[in-house]
Amino acid sequence: MLRFSSRKSDYLPKSFYNLKADLPRLPKPPVHPGTRQPLSPSDLEPIFSKGMIAHEISMEREVPIPVRVLEALRQYRPTPLVYASNLKAHLQTPAHIFYKYEGAGPTGSHKSNTALVQAYLAAEEGIKCLSTETGAGQWGCALAHAGSLFGLEVKIFMVSSSFKSKPGRKTMAELFGASIVSSPSLLTEAGRRFLAMDRNHVGSLGIAISEAIEAALTHPGTKYSLGSVLDAVLMHQSIIGLEAEVQMREFDKEPDVVIGCVGGGSNFGGISFPFVRKNLKEGKRIRFIAAEPESCPTLTKGELRYDHGDTAGMTPLLHMYTLGKDFVPPPLHAGGLRYHGMAPLVSHLVHRGVVEPRAYAQDRVFQAARTFFITEGILPAPESSHAIAAVMDEALKAKREGKETVILFNLSGHGFLDMSAYERNGNGHKPM
Amino acid sequence: MLRFSSRKSDYLPKSFYNLKADLPRLPKPPVHPGTRQPLSPSDLEPIFSKGMIAHEISMEREVPIPVRVLEALRQYRPTPLVYASNLKAHLQTPAHIFYKYEGAGPTGSHKSNTALVQAYLAAEEGIKCLSTETGAGQWGCALAHAGSLFGLEVKIFMVSSSFKSKPGRKTMAELFGASIVSSPSLLTEAGRRFLAMDRNHVGSLGIAISEAIEAALTHPGTKYSLGSVLDAVLMHQSIIGLEAEVQMREFDKEPDVVIGCVGGGSNFGGISFPFVRKNLKEGKRIRFIAAEPESCPTLTKGELRYDHGDTAGMTPLLHMYTLGKDFVPPPLHAGGLRYHGMAPLVSHLVHRGVVEPRAYAQDRVFQAARTFFITEGILPAPESSHAIAAVMDEALKAKREGKETVILFNLSGHGFLDMSAYERNGNGHKPM
Repeated sequence: MLRFSSRKSDYLPKSFYNLKADLPRLPKPPVHPGTRQPLSPSDLEPIFSKGMIAHEISMEREVPIPVRVLEALRQYRPTPLVYASNLKAHLQTPAHIFYKYEGAGPTGSHKSNTALVQAYLAAEEGIKCLSTETGAGQWGCALAHAGSLFGLEVKIFMVSSSFKSKPGRKTMAELFGASIVSSPSLLTEAGRRFLAMDRNHVGSLGIAISEAIEAALTHPGTKYSLGSVLDAVLMHQSIIGLEAEVQMREFDKEPDVVIGCVGGGSNFGGISFPFVRKNLKEGKRIRFIAAEPESCPTLTKGELRYDHGDTAGMTPLLHMYTLGKDFVPPPLHAGGLRYHGMAPLVSHLVHRGVVEPRAYAQDRVFQAARTFFITEGILPAPESSHAIAAVMDEALKAKREGKETVILFNLSGHGFLDMSAYERNGNGHKPM
Repeated sequence: MLRFSSRKSDYLPKSFYNLKADLPRLPKPPVHPGTRQPLSPSDLEPIFSKGMIAHEISMEREVPIPVRVLEALRQYRPTPLVYASNLKAHLQTPAHIFYKYEGAGPTGSHKSNTALVQAYLAAEEGIKCLSTETGAGQWGCALAHAGSLFGLEVKIFMVSSSFKSKPGRKTMAELFGASIVSSPSLLTEAGRRFLAMDRNHVGSLGIAISEAIEAALTHPGTKYSLGSVLDAVLMHQSIIGLEAEVQMREFDKEPDVVIGCVGGGSNFGGISFPFVRKNLKEGKRIRFIAAEPESCPTLTKGELRYDHGDTAGMTPLLHMYTLGKDFVPPPLHAGGLRYHGMAPLVSHLVHRGVVEPRAYAQDRVFQAARTFFITEGILPAPESSHAIAAVMDEALKAKREGKETVILFNLSGHGFLDMSAYERNGNGHKPM
């Protein structure tokens, strides 16, 4: 029996798209921190499920989506592609603005797209528990939900500053039966070390990752799950762009520019990689813009080099733009964009000039968010609002130039669980 | 240009359905509190817009939806009709459960359906400002949004207990540029009187209505807007049931039972009245269940008589089930279901035996909500969760009887702005 009345004939991809199969040149591989040799799959086995490792190293262009994952994705996919006619009217721009609304998922962000895959793969192998980190909580909630569907225990280390400012996501994770603690915590060696340095430590994604990996290594039956950065995660998110590609056809439009916000890079990779393929394979000249916070300017101020994915230095070395594994950003409302590093695939595309990075100040981002909410009627997550700021730049540029630029962006999540951020930041701002 | 990619051919009604045109017998009319005579339209003019009065007294079966309102509704309508396959599997019931997801609207509840009409009608007449009350804040946010779209100032009196426990909805209303105060407030004579009785007064919808009406009567250019109870509001909400009727056909199913929660009665009326018509006109025998909180048991414990719609006695007398205009329910999480009275049309159908009322305890309701969230992946508003509790009763009854009962209910809103309610009530509960 079909699930969505008005989505009867809707397209849902049967496979993920793996950009690596089409890249003329690959990013430098992850290396072992001791030997400096490229990692072998077995190096990853203490941490990740075998299924996840297979996805990570796959060079197949199309990686099939398991049937039970497809069923779970059907709960909320395809997500709507929306023509932002009200925002267009408000900005009086000739640009055509489209957004893919990933907040339609069960926990309000794109994170469920990979959480469902990762939980399914782990459950298939008999893994009992997944440990993970989370920033603002979108990823933690998504994995908690996926774990509850596939019968897995889920342990979440949530960055302390967000744990305090976003209590709703803690509550949500607990509703799904997950356990969730503030990071740094007393539960791990790494956490105790950072608390010893500062008992009111605000935490960071790097620290929370160290804690989650340690929890996986020290508890039998537990593996680690990561919500961004990995090639596999970006591949899982490709369903966003694959759906958008088909949905855009209904509007008889193709994007001139594709925009996403970047923290670890997964929602951006998800919407953009199927369109990067169009440039590579069909000779299109689509532009790509990655929007990040000025206070965590990984792509605009970081350097491209090998660095650890976590702060304690437990992960392999990844070749990526990084602010240094010890970077602790100030508490900012876009908790999901606080990562010191960046997905190697996104880093590679920035380095090759395919993706243009831009940094936005928090004030500017909240102004864009409020304008979007008032005109389009969806309250964006603070993270996604960085993309909206870039969209407005492009839409106003199109207005100056009198061009009907077609803009596609990923509205990666809603902001209903981030109201405290709007309380403090949104009210004073007038719409643009 | 179409707006939703996957909703190209979707049905959106062009007219509201007015049940009064088909009722063999009408409810007793509202009467003037002084003369006890049925109200004339002019009696309502000091309070309501003329357009709203015309909708209220109309006996036309089909009342056209203004074009600009249709455009605004297109932003989020038709809302999805979802087949609750995961909930069905969890309950192991032969029943087929469908829900109409009204949380897909801009402020997360069905309230926008009438807010957009009321704001448009007021703006057309040159009214500058609408004053209103709100319980948990869904209605206040919806009118704030509608006001921002049609260029109206909006003043909201929010029941004090919710003002404290649901700060997110206050923030949201302010993002739309509305002003919102805790009720009872110092801004009105009525508010000051109740604060004098108890300076920590928890407030009630009846008191907030008195304040909002007083604000309209004492400020030139201001009219009052009501989010439920009125015949016109229930008529505006009929688009829920009209869409559901068409969408159910895609599933080749017709409901055996239609369920909604009731506070003032508007979301229940919205989903059910088009199906009540089927009983009246096509000889169907659909059952209707109205679910209310045990702590505000208007239909199950109240009496059917004339009473004021507000606490200060400023409104006409309505013939309805009532707990008495002075009833102040204990602070409960389903802030939208705290009204002392009930829409006269719903009261009439309960009295005639067409609608069966049921009361549910808060614990039971949160248990149902959590089960729904875990299985269906949408966090329901505490109000809507009363309907879910009734749905589970019916689904389990179908299981005992081995019947493929077709259940349709209205998921009137999401609960992302009610997380504090889940924090305190949801965690201890196991899914059913």
